[in-house]
Amino acid sequence: MPLASSAADTSRAQLIADTALALLAERGLRGLTHRAVDEAAGLPPGSTSNRARTRLALLEAAVRRLAVREAEVLSLPGMPDPVDGPEALAQVIGRALHRSLTGQRELLVARYELALEASRRPELRAAYDAAGRGFREMLVAMMTAAGSTAPERHALSLLAWCEGLMFSCAAGSYHAEVPGPAELGEGAAELLRGMLGR
Amino acid sequence: MPLASSAADTSRAQLIADTALALLAERGLRGLTHRAVDEAAGLPPGSTSNRARTRLALLEAAVRRLAVREAEVLSLPGMPDPVDGPEALAQVIGRALHRSLTGQRELLVARYELALEASRRPELRAAYDAAGRGFREMLVAMMTAAGSTAPERHALSLLAWCEGLMFSCAAGSYHAEVPGPAELGEGAAELLRGMLGR
Repeated sequence: MPLASSAADTSRAQLIADTALALLAERGLRGLTHRAVDEAAGLPPGSTSNRARTRLALLEAAVRRLAVREAEVLSLPGMPDPVDGPEALAQVIGRALHRSLTGQRELLVARYELALEASRRPELRAAYDAAGRGFREMLVAMMTAAGSTAPERHALSLLAWCEGLMFSCAAGSYHAEVPGPAELGEGAAELLRGMLGR
Repeated sequence: MPLASSAADTSRAQLIADTALALLAERGLRGLTHRAVDEAAGLPPGSTSNRARTRLALLEAAVRRLAVREAEVLSLPGMPDPVDGPEALAQVIGRALHRSLTGQRELLVARYELALEASRRPELRAAYDAAGRGFREMLVAMMTAAGSTAPERHALSLLAWCEGLMFSCAAGSYHAEVPGPAELGEGAAELLRGMLGR
């Protein structure tokens, strides 16, 4: 039964990667071991080692799975036409940020752990950068469509603003004061207006 | 000789805290132990334990020292009069960010490690928040002086933008593309113009 077996394979690989992400958020890098994943996922001892032989392979699996889950959270449903101007776009960004901060705080903390480890491990850096490339390209295309005269620089500026808000609210000193979606949208609109000169 | 002894005390306490920050940046939380600090600082075994009995005390010493060192890097020399408008202020911010990204990347990585640990340890959270309070208050006062109609919200927005740029460039996927001071200043000016409506 190759098909059924392949579906079970995929689902076990996902369970392992999701458990690795949860452990990273809850216990940090120190808490992520093959054995801890087996235990937390309720799998027989050795299951995680069978899928991801080395620590690097386990970290890479977590990075790839994170990119898929973040894309689900941050994907912008009801994406407005960029020619409608920055206000409509800003509201969509505000709602996506709020979803991420309220429903997926664990993913954010796991990503910061992986980014910091990538800053120390060039092999992991490659996987981290590859996973984020699609999102970066989407932002550049979005700023171009919105009429930006410097879409690469503006994409970094918008990404940085979102990233910093998420960091300050998920792990930094604004952890107790997550703004609402309207407030987040207002902030995004101010940045977009400043960048687009309207 | 109480005076000399007190100066030596201060200098050893600083050496221990600075070494803890360097270890956090280089090896992450896993790499920070009392013994590793003794070794890296070239101190007799037990020196770090004498100053900071517990792991929490060592982390708190690192957080307090970090706030002092970051204030030195980010302090805005030649701070323009806010009534001169956002452009002058933005250039000062751009230069401060560039200094931090090029000269003090290690401090940034150490801070992210401490913030993530604080998100798991409420006792450390208190020290982290207290250390950042002065900086937050300074930003609110700066936005008020610049004519902001929502200084609290705008202070978070500006902090988030700076924080996100630093994170993306120090640990995230822009690590190989640190913008120059003029480019950073241009981005800060766009955000300020958007917030201040000019």
